[in-house]
Amino acid sequence: MADLPVQQHAPDGARVIVAGATGFAGALAAHLLWRHPDFQLAAVTGRSELGRPLGELYPRYRVPLAIEELDAAQLEGVDAAVVAYPHAAAAPTVAALHERGIRVVDLSADFRLRSLETYERWYGEHPRPALIEHAVYGLSELHRERIAAAAIVANPGCYPTASLLALAPLARAGLIADVVIDAKQGISGAGRVFDETTHLSMAGENIVPYKVAAHRHTPEIEEQLALLIGADGAGGGLRVQFQAHLVPLDQGEMASCYVTTTRSLGAGELRDLYRDAYASEPFVELLDGPPGVLEVRETNYCRVYAAADQHTGKVIAFGAIDNLWKGTSSQALQNLNLMFGLPETRGLL
Amino acid sequence: MADLPVQQHAPDGARVIVAGATGFAGALAAHLLWRHPDFQLAAVTGRSELGRPLGELYPRYRVPLAIEELDAAQLEGVDAAVVAYPHAAAAPTVAALHERGIRVVDLSADFRLRSLETYERWYGEHPRPALIEHAVYGLSELHRERIAAAAIVANPGCYPTASLLALAPLARAGLIADVVIDAKQGISGAGRVFDETTHLSMAGENIVPYKVAAHRHTPEIEEQLALLIGADGAGGGLRVQFQAHLVPLDQGEMASCYVTTTRSLGAGELRDLYRDAYASEPFVELLDGPPGVLEVRETNYCRVYAAADQHTGKVIAFGAIDNLWKGTSSQALQNLNLMFGLPETRGLL
Amino acid sequence: MADLPVQQHAPDGARVIVAGATGFAGALAAHLLWRHPDFQLAAVTGRSELGRPLGELYPRYRVPLAIEELDAAQLEGVDAAVVAYPHAAAAPTVAALHERGIRVVDLSADFRLRSLETYERWYGEHPRPALIEHAVYGLSELHRERIAAAAIVANPGCYPTASLLALAPLARAGLIADVVIDAKQGISGAGRVFDETTHLSMAGENIVPYKVAAHRHTPEIEEQLALLIGADGAGGGLRVQFQAHLVPLDQGEMASCYVTTTRSLGAGELRDLYRDAYASEPFVELLDGPPGVLEVRETNYCRVYAAADQHTGKVIAFGAIDNLWKGTSSQALQNLNLMFGLPETRGLL
Amino acid sequence: MADLPVQQHAPDGARVIVAGATGFAGALAAHLLWRHPDFQLAAVTGRSELGRPLGELYPRYRVPLAIEELDAAQLEGVDAAVVAYPHAAAAPTVAALHERGIRVVDLSADFRLRSLETYERWYGEHPRPALIEHAVYGLSELHRERIAAAAIVANPGCYPTASLLALAPLARAGLIADVVIDAKQGISGAGRVFDETTHLSMAGENIVPYKVAAHRHTPEIEEQLALLIGADGAGGGLRVQFQAHLVPLDQGEMASCYVTTTRSLGAGELRDLYRDAYASEPFVELLDGPPGVLEVRETNYCRVYAAADQHTGKVIAFGAIDNLWKGTSSQALQNLNLMFGLPETRGLL
Repeated sequence: MADLPVQQHAPDGARVIVAGATGFAGALAAHLLWRHPDFQLAAVTGRSELGRPLGELYPRYRVPLAIEELDAAQLEGVDAAVVAYPHAAAAPTVAALHERGIRVVDLSADFRLRSLETYERWYGEHPRPALIEHAVYGLSELHRERIAAAAIVANPGCYPTASLLALAPLARAGLIADVVIDAKQGISGAGRVFDETTHLSMAGENIVPYKVAAHRHTPEIEEQLALLIGADGAGGGLRVQFQAHLVPLDQGEMASCYVTTTRSLGAGELRDLYRDAYASEPFVELLDGPPGVLEVRETNYCRVYAAADQHTGKVIAFGAIDNLWKGTSSQALQNLNLMFGLPETRGLL
Repeated sequence: MADLPVQQHAPDGARVIVAGATGFAGALAAHLLWRHPDFQLAAVTGRSELGRPLGELYPRYRVPLAIEELDAAQLEGVDAAVVAYPHAAAAPTVAALHERGIRVVDLSADFRLRSLETYERWYGEHPRPALIEHAVYGLSELHRERIAAAAIVANPGCYPTASLLALAPLARAGLIADVVIDAKQGISGAGRVFDETTHLSMAGENIVPYKVAAHRHTPEIEEQLALLIGADGAGGGLRVQFQAHLVPLDQGEMASCYVTTTRSLGAGELRDLYRDAYASEPFVELLDGPPGVLEVRETNYCRVYAAADQHTGKVIAFGAIDNLWKGTSSQALQNLNLMFGLPETRGLL
Repeated sequence: MADLPVQQHAPDGARVIVAGATGFAGALAAHLLWRHPDFQLAAVTGRSELGRPLGELYPRYRVPLAIEELDAAQLEGVDAAVVAYPHAAAAPTVAALHERGIRVVDLSADFRLRSLETYERWYGEHPRPALIEHAVYGLSELHRERIAAAAIVANPGCYPTASLLALAPLARAGLIADVVIDAKQGISGAGRVFDETTHLSMAGENIVPYKVAAHRHTPEIEEQLALLIGADGAGGGLRVQFQAHLVPLDQGEMASCYVTTTRSLGAGELRDLYRDAYASEPFVELLDGPPGVLEVRETNYCRVYAAADQHTGKVIAFGAIDNLWKGTSSQALQNLNLMFGLPETRGLL
Repeated sequence: MADLPVQQHAPDGARVIVAGATGFAGALAAHLLWRHPDFQLAAVTGRSELGRPLGELYPRYRVPLAIEELDAAQLEGVDAAVVAYPHAAAAPTVAALHERGIRVVDLSADFRLRSLETYERWYGEHPRPALIEHAVYGLSELHRERIAAAAIVANPGCYPTASLLALAPLARAGLIADVVIDAKQGISGAGRVFDETTHLSMAGENIVPYKVAAHRHTPEIEEQLALLIGADGAGGGLRVQFQAHLVPLDQGEMASCYVTTTRSLGAGELRDLYRDAYASEPFVELLDGPPGVLEVRETNYCRVYAAADQHTGKVIAFGAIDNLWKGTSSQALQNLNLMFGLPETRGLL
């Protein structure tokens, strides 16, 4: 075999590290950076598998760099970092990188919520509350301009990404009186976790709801919807019914949103609302019928479809993404593109 | 190979035919009858594959009988029939069998709705409206006694089965103000249909909503909920938001029901409500946590779980079944057991 | 929910325990015993999950008994045991049970090989070599009569089961000069193991060969083929090329066997050879075309097909089974039926 | 949604059409051309779905061109064509394009065999035998230089691609005395065909051998092995035992090759043989352990592993590819790169 092809086309590009590259999200971010025409993947770090090439752990991704221990104090010449740690574990690392002037895209939940009170109600004590005000919520389509200038980008959860893109046009127009979001996701959503939820003999041929009435993506969706509606960031009173399910595929996520509207809405008005919102979005594909998640697998696209139900008066809106791509790692790249003044689609088409 | 084992243990049992045995539902009904200790499978009929052993078409089911053409006028010595035709095609056959005194379990939608008006709004003209009054809705747990005496049993749709078992205790207590039902089903729900919806390369690794704001199981659920609530059969005003999705497995179905209740409901009251409803049901398994459909694959069980969401005030109720078994063919057997005075679980455990 | 249905129809039947019921094989054996009309499941034991109902760990199997610690010295009134431990761990338990006069079906490899030398070459030191002579190889179709009288039945490996049933007619006729066996198996074959080989995101959409040139089922197949050929039990010189692969399904196994024959063989002669061998076997289904493993899922059947390749002169023989059923646990029941003088098919159709 | 992104970066690049773009292979070739930096996708043609954007039929591929009827006589300014028709249907179209000076990569079997006699024995009468001598067998790694200059490239079958890359080093060294190839493939290998072989409820959870002792890729493998061995193109006496199986995934193919060698071979010698053969191949990844097909999904890589079995004396060699990519359409692009003097890896990493 030839040496692994060097796909770094960017000797002068910004240097980016991935911290926590042994998990699904970090490994994919490393892969996307490695093949990106304008970024250099400067290092991949982890807390296990030290010294082992990432490409051995994730053969599909063909990243030849070896996993190193992260020592933020010793980092030199690094422009940005993608941090792929669990919540609470992420914040101290984000803080250390931030102190060294490194721009961060944080994949954890630590800086997604503007309200510290909400964070602590759902997650417990916040390790670095002072940094919250420096973070921008990284749903690229909603906060593009602020992301471009941000020191810390809080990359959204996968469910909020699909849900908010499905609901944003209705929210902005103040049309959501009540909403139920039923989400389905492939097993990669459980991550590099080895137990009953991921064993093919148990997860295959199965459909399983989880975290019933308790999913932590709920407040994230509520806060962003409230911002779109124009109410204050604590939720504005709108309580979202969010429920997640695991279904037997690898990558793919569907958010089915059932909206009780504040007033009656015709099919034409609904169509115009969504067209106006997404006409110039490069990664939102607005459809005339329901999407399938296979259509977005291994892409940064979100497919959206909204329909008015004449029988019930409700609006049904669907958002379909690849949970690991637009739901996590490729959206991190989209945000990095914005942060470094590159075309938003660079390396993602 | 030895001759196919004769599994008919019932020389004196009631003689039952399956009309439309070449489809998924009919074939499984034939299999279940063939191995049933107290029924004789008298014939399997179809409109194609004539003369071919059913066991060749469905090797798993090992039914050696050859497929015959159905001639209702010539039937002798037949006590009951399972009719597995599409809606509108079923009614004339049901009528012909009924005229010869043969008791029928009809798997189609033709006799599920008590309201002719509702039927014609969703399905078009009814071929045999006069028979509607002779039919009993065959959700065994709801109409056990009337099924036992019925000439025609309208076997429920799979989605109504899972949804109604999840919702019945709330409906009976008059607690449902509004409900959204998000249902997910394996590909067997599409039946023996060969197209983009069933090709493994298109349906595998996919999640696809279908019949958006237009699924014909909606009025069936509404009418039965109205009966439970005590309102009249036309729906009693409650409009159900029902949405179906195909997910990449073979057999299995999950109905996730989001209920806005008419009043606030505590966790204890909710638990008692469901316990009281299902304490003595042989095929309803009430759980303390969310079910997975794999737990009911190839069984007649329905697993039910209901939770009160403190955050939103709504109740979430799940019903998990095998869409081909409890959702269709094994429920037909459960009904036949009731109709012929056998223990309800006979041949189904 | 009603109490779990008591499916033990056999108050006077033989009392059987399952040792090691927390793994896939033991749990299924417990399920099959629990619903068997002529055995009593007396206890399920394990080394973890003590006190927990087996039905919680394996909801599909609905066995309400709680997992106990095994104390062979205290066992009273037990007629037989299914031992589902790993090799080397099994032999001491088998010995302890044997000493108390309890008949054993051992699912491990410990007593499958008649040659101690071969065992030690492939597995290391044997914990109880003196017991080897008391054990009978439990491929029901090959050793039916000796199994009936055996104190210890060494249940075959799943690959040997499929391979030997595909090859036995050729072997008995002395027609095998050389054989390559390429076997494919679903992920349940990896057992209740949680790692990269079973995670749906890694095992789904994958095909992976494993234990290349080193699978321990090789000597088991060789020894049994040698016995059929009439040579001595050490292999008779025939070296079998055996290779296993994992493919992305739950239960199912296909052994594709490529035989260089000792002389040219016509299609008619081949067909007669297999017909004569399997005409009266209740669980071998001889086909006129290639089998699919779905046709035997959750059954004790083995489907066999053999074809002469005019182009190469070789014979291709396929054996398709469910690796957990005929390949493991339902064959254990078939053997127990033989051991207790019951019809061989009892509880298995 | 924004207009579909124009991904044609090559206003001056060679203009290529895809004939037969509605099938799986043609559609993927169109996708790969559409996003290729140095080719223009000039047209997509088909015999059905005329006027419909290809991106509607295959949403994942996002090719906005509408399907046209092919009129070879009217083609202007086209430099090359990928022809994706069934065998026998392809040859006349290849001939018509060839007459107009258009270079062709033909995905069918029509020009893969150098021996007309062999073709006619396996496929029937050849529609354009005179063209055979103008065609080069398009396994890029074996015939790189002749492909670069070819007017017609006969793209290999997917099974020959995986098999020949696994076996070529042994064949070139004259080491193959006999070989059994057992191949497994995902359901996409069956193509856009809607029947029992592709329905998820029948193909999922299944393993099915097909075309037993009769697969038409056999003579293709034999002829190419004979060329490598140095014998004449008719097969040189080596008869290959080839058997294909469908397993339940979408894209992926494993060829497991069992070689009886002409002389004994040590592990070191075997390793050196393969290293020498593949050290500088950009798309062959030589491994130290068995590959999984997931590692090459949606890539042009072939992963190869060879091991000497001390027990049997045979060599086992594995070739893992994506049947639609390296097995079909991305290899067509690799060949087009060669034909147009581009770096072989362009557009494929």
